[in-house]
Amino acid sequence: MRLPARSVELTQVTEWRDGSIHLVEDSLAAEEPLEIRLDGVPLTVTMRTPGNDLQLAVGFLLTEGIVESRDQLAGLCDGTPVFGSKGNVVELQLKDCEFEPKDLQRNFFAASSCGICGKASIEAIRRRGLRMPDRGFRIAPEILCTLPEKLRTQQAVFDRTGGLHAAALFDAEGDLVALREDIGRHNAVDKLVGWALLEGRIPLNRSVLVVSGRGGFEIVQKALAAGVPMVASVSAPSSLAVKLARELGLTLIGFVRGQRFVVYSGGESCLSQVP
Amino acid sequence: MRLPARSVELTQVTEWRDGSIHLVEDSLAAEEPLEIRLDGVPLTVTMRTPGNDLQLAVGFLLTEGIVESRDQLAGLCDGTPVFGSKGNVVELQLKDCEFEPKDLQRNFFAASSCGICGKASIEAIRRRGLRMPDRGFRIAPEILCTLPEKLRTQQAVFDRTGGLHAAALFDAEGDLVALREDIGRHNAVDKLVGWALLEGRIPLNRSVLVVSGRGGFEIVQKALAAGVPMVASVSAPSSLAVKLARELGLTLIGFVRGQRFVVYSGGESCLSQVP
Repeated sequence: MRLPARSVELTQVTEWRDGSIHLVEDSLAAEEPLEIRLDGVPLTVTMRTPGNDLQLAVGFLLTEGIVESRDQLAGLCDGTPVFGSKGNVVELQLKDCEFEPKDLQRNFFAASSCGICGKASIEAIRRRGLRMPDRGFRIAPEILCTLPEKLRTQQAVFDRTGGLHAAALFDAEGDLVALREDIGRHNAVDKLVGWALLEGRIPLNRSVLVVSGRGGFEIVQKALAAGVPMVASVSAPSSLAVKLARELGLTLIGFVRGQRFVVYSGGESCLSQVP
Repeated sequence: MRLPARSVELTQVTEWRDGSIHLVEDSLAAEEPLEIRLDGVPLTVTMRTPGNDLQLAVGFLLTEGIVESRDQLAGLCDGTPVFGSKGNVVELQLKDCEFEPKDLQRNFFAASSCGICGKASIEAIRRRGLRMPDRGFRIAPEILCTLPEKLRTQQAVFDRTGGLHAAALFDAEGDLVALREDIGRHNAVDKLVGWALLEGRIPLNRSVLVVSGRGGFEIVQKALAAGVPMVASVSAPSSLAVKLARELGLTLIGFVRGQRFVVYSGGESCLSQVP
């Protein structure tokens, strides 16, 4: 599999094995800061694995509630991209200069300070206008059980480094739609969502999002922003992730291991017969 | 093992196993926002697992470079704690009202915007006055290999939920000094560091920090702030974590699995004979 440029770095390390020591070459997952700017204003700096930076930036704008469609980004409709990515900075522009840094501060304040209780956090998410995802999506349990292994075998950078999170979209037949890797789980999801936004595939209402790590609050919130109806992982979700998923009607599945999984939100109505 | 209050939540879930469906009770790792205030000013909101909140807040102040010792916190020296934790808010006060919110903004700005390249990130960390940890700490490889399993068996909340990160300090003999769990890896480290600060154990120059996840840039930076000379994990470090560890002389070890591990920074000089 082809690796994104700069996603892996080679270095010399010391390996200890059964009492003997060897100097070996090793591949490391690259981690570098990326600054995302909107209309010239620095929005955020995130530690990410280089590669698909534009998708990451665009996905971040969507999952943070700053844009809802690619039509709001300048240079995407007329085919002349005006945003640029230079090394570790991505610059984006809104169409018609609608962006007000003050709105953004309000937005971030609402998202982070959020009343300091779980209920208020969910309320803040709801105020951002997140809709219930399409409840029509179903998947056969036998297909669902195959997805973590499919995710794992498609991870190009993980194969080299053993150290990356992945997020992937699969359809109801269990076919891979897209996969992204990053040292940050939330960045892997933003890259995937940004890809979908640029491809005109939002809302992602015919897909299940499979993540390599835990299905936490942040992942469920990003899935909702992208219209994803189902999130699955091999690990446990958090209490707040389950509350948010139940409140907004997202199917949340954990511990997909072998011939077993746990449905934390959505019950058995998300399951179908093998097609 | 005793669980911190509110660290686990019970809920009813749907389990699918080998084609049959069961309704079962399940334990979820709790995730709630915590607001940390300093001298009345909101510093940050972090999503954390409730429990050891004061340690988390105090550890955050240390690893973010806001305080260096417990003497700077009011109410700690004369035995009259003036800080309080009410539900999801922890309030702390500096002695002699030395805190200037502007300084903090500068501090955060330096840490986050950081010039947008790995080299500049390390430079920003260095400007915060982080010193090289004590290079005298050694550990026997055979002891090091036992630590991940010891960490795992001591994880009380993980046992119930299957979904928590852990950070623990061990001494050179492989004895557990302290362990903390959290839904966020960085929070588990901050809780541990905060405990050490309140106990007067900073710098932690006779301990190895073992983390359940990846040894990333943030973990290495927090270890350096607490004077920890060695960080070990079962997984891979990132490129920037390795660069920072090499630059400041911290021993960074990854892939501690069975009778094997990889030394990414520090070489074999960190290894000793079995005592």
